[in-house]
Amino acid sequence: MEELKRRILQEGRHLGQGILKVDAFLNHQVDPQLMMACGQEIARRMVHLQPTKVFTAEISGIAPALTTAYVLGVPLVFARKHRPVTLPPDALHVQVPSPTKGGLADLWLSPEWMHPEDRVLIVDDFLASGRTILALARLVRMAGAQVVGVAVLIEKVFQNGRDALQPLGVPVLSLVRIARFEGPHVVFAE
Amino acid sequence: MEELKRRILQEGRHLGQGILKVDAFLNHQVDPQLMMACGQEIARRMVHLQPTKVFTAEISGIAPALTTAYVLGVPLVFARKHRPVTLPPDALHVQVPSPTKGGLADLWLSPEWMHPEDRVLIVDDFLASGRTILALARLVRMAGAQVVGVAVLIEKVFQNGRDALQPLGVPVLSLVRIARFEGPHVVFAE
Repeated sequence: MEELKRRILQEGRHLGQGILKVDAFLNHQVDPQLMMACGQEIARRMVHLQPTKVFTAEISGIAPALTTAYVLGVPLVFARKHRPVTLPPDALHVQVPSPTKGGLADLWLSPEWMHPEDRVLIVDDFLASGRTILALARLVRMAGAQVVGVAVLIEKVFQNGRDALQPLGVPVLSLVRIARFEGPHVVFAE
Repeated sequence: MEELKRRILQEGRHLGQGILKVDAFLNHQVDPQLMMACGQEIARRMVHLQPTKVFTAEISGIAPALTTAYVLGVPLVFARKHRPVTLPPDALHVQVPSPTKGGLADLWLSPEWMHPEDRVLIVDDFLASGRTILALARLVRMAGAQVVGVAVLIEKVFQNGRDALQPLGVPVLSLVRIARFEGPHVVFAE
């Protein structure tokens, strides 16, 4: 997606160790028009999978997942990282290693909002190692539902997340693929 | 806003102690069409304030703040609760008492995304005690910018947040006002 590439080149910054700062339009400040364009593009390319729910993890996945769900006309569910008081006792729970913060991060899903008949499209901001998305897929399966596809805005190809997601056996769409960083410069995969 | 009232009556649940569970369409599962309708209504009633930025706190404020910003055609900024590695050393920081979790919650804002010329509309899901919104307003002032209005989806009138916000001297809009709970039942203020 050319518009997202352009914004990464103009406003993204490589902070070292493979960390791409896109706080200008995605992770701290958010460009709603860009998010809507990304949601439209994801929906256009994934609607044939007939998703009934979009699923993401808080926090930075919420904006692109919301616009995707809006265009598809289906609900969004976001996994909670901290168990709120409103979660029922039978809430589903997985843990995922957190490379930036160390330790394990929690993800919670109430079975109230995901059912065996649901066809779930997982949407997130980044695909890096794939561990967060695999954890979301585990929650979907624990709810008895089916993952039908994965879509992300930015794939960091060098972190091999696409290989990690292969066991899911579903289409994986990334709007932009980053092959590597050369110092401060971003090199796209195609 | 009648649609939001209807959804609260149909799908909201009072869990006791003034806690309203709206996980069906706002805090865990999100209805994107409802969020867009709320964003349109907030934008329609606040556009005269000429906001240049919408500002919220992660997590549940993001969805209605994003749609409001989308309709207004301005960027959204969300204050971070955990300091990410992408935040610069001069990031602005406030703390706010957390009634549901106890202790103090952190809110971080990078001055990169808020400037003295900015006219800021604060948007959040709930107005309860008003403490989170006051903390957001402090961050805006620390950045040298100006709060021009506050908009929330649901005001819990009995928690007196509107009085707490009075020192800001700006219009406060709530799409729905809850006067009190009577057992499991919601009583609206008008």
